[in-house]
Amino acid sequence: MIEKKLKELGIEITEPAKPLAAYVPFVKAGDFVFTSGQIPVENGELKFKGKVGKDLSLEEGQAAAKLCLINCLSAVKAAAGSLNSIERIVKITVFVNSAEGFTAQPQVANGASNLLIDIFGETGKHSRSAVGVSELPIDSAVEIEMIAKLKE
Amino acid sequence: MIEKKLKELGIEITEPAKPLAAYVPFVKAGDFVFTSGQIPVENGELKFKGKVGKDLSLEEGQAAAKLCLINCLSAVKAAAGSLNSIERIVKITVFVNSAEGFTAQPQVANGASNLLIDIFGETGKHSRSAVGVSELPIDSAVEIEMIAKLKE
Amino acid sequence: MIEKKLKELGIEITEPAKPLAAYVPFVKAGDFVFTSGQIPVENGELKFKGKVGKDLSLEEGQAAAKLCLINCLSAVKAAAGSLNSIERIVKITVFVNSAEGFTAQPQVANGASNLLIDIFGETGKHSRSAVGVSELPIDSAVEIEMIAKLKE
Repeated sequence: MIEKKLKELGIEITEPAKPLAAYVPFVKAGDFVFTSGQIPVENGELKFKGKVGKDLSLEEGQAAAKLCLINCLSAVKAAAGSLNSIERIVKITVFVNSAEGFTAQPQVANGASNLLIDIFGETGKHSRSAVGVSELPIDSAVEIEMIAKLKE
Repeated sequence: MIEKKLKELGIEITEPAKPLAAYVPFVKAGDFVFTSGQIPVENGELKFKGKVGKDLSLEEGQAAAKLCLINCLSAVKAAAGSLNSIERIVKITVFVNSAEGFTAQPQVANGASNLLIDIFGETGKHSRSAVGVSELPIDSAVEIEMIAKLKE
Repeated sequence: MIEKKLKELGIEITEPAKPLAAYVPFVKAGDFVFTSGQIPVENGELKFKGKVGKDLSLEEGQAAAKLCLINCLSAVKAAAGSLNSIERIVKITVFVNSAEGFTAQPQVANGASNLLIDIFGETGKHSRSAVGVSELPIDSAVEIEMIAKLKE
């Protein structure tokens, strides 16, 4: 069912992005999956670089958040076997590389949140924190981490 | 018991603040409740705006943290039915919108931590991270998220 | 076994660092341990102060991350009784006090991640987020928090 929805939305969930360093893309602990912070990388290339509100528009920031979210789902899928095994998306934390005075982090994060609702419906209704940070790895525009709960 | 303590402290725990975007104020997963990041909003209005250490004093930052914490408790109460159902406040993460060179994030966060101890005693003894960030949603002074564990 | 490895690496895990304020160094909730954010303090003294990429080199940032990690392990050990009780290091979040334009947060965080692998092997393979922040408590160079899962 989730796979069908992804197809309708034109979204492909591939293997998790290779971590930038000495850690793993996810850890399964009990029924929870914790993903590493995901940046907007596609096919190994950083797609959204710089500060939202200066180097990037709000719309580009939202697209970056969407891509981070897709990478989170890749990690959860690798942990769970299938996205159908997700009982609930518990939490996302959205770090936005923010220009001075840029305070629309919630709007940027909606690029991720709306996609979760579109894909999962009720199961995708998540808690969320969104904050602005001064720097992110390799000048990424956004970084998102996720906690999901799997069906027992 | 908790309700009595709140009354003594003159604190009212109302409905959770409406999220700024496409997510929910809390998710209950197993015995855990994860709240969304809460900002110092009261009756729909942002009460503490700007950077602590420039636009706001330390004392105002502490008051902002206290209000964020009250909003976290509103979310946990909505999840749990009653604050008496809380087994333990597990963790708070305190993001402080910080002026350049302002490094008293722990003192700001104490506005939240001290209130937790005052309300819950042992149950309120929590782990905590406090960090300074460059921007927060709608220029909020502080943002706090909470993890609580409910009684089984 | 873990204690032997620590001895080989010349690392001593002492009592948890005293929190800077009104909270506790860790909370055990179910099989999970959540640590408070740890800064690079040794014998009560802050060892790495300032912004990585300006006041401190990358190597110093890595050493700071390593010391934060050791302090996280002190907290987990106090929670668990022994580091042998750890089933898995679930997650670390690494906040790097970053100079403008410094984007090597993953390399800084490796100071912590590599140590986890060195000490724990497979058990130490963790998920991770690393972000750059503008200010940290008492001008600490790095702050790290950890989630660990204990054996049942």
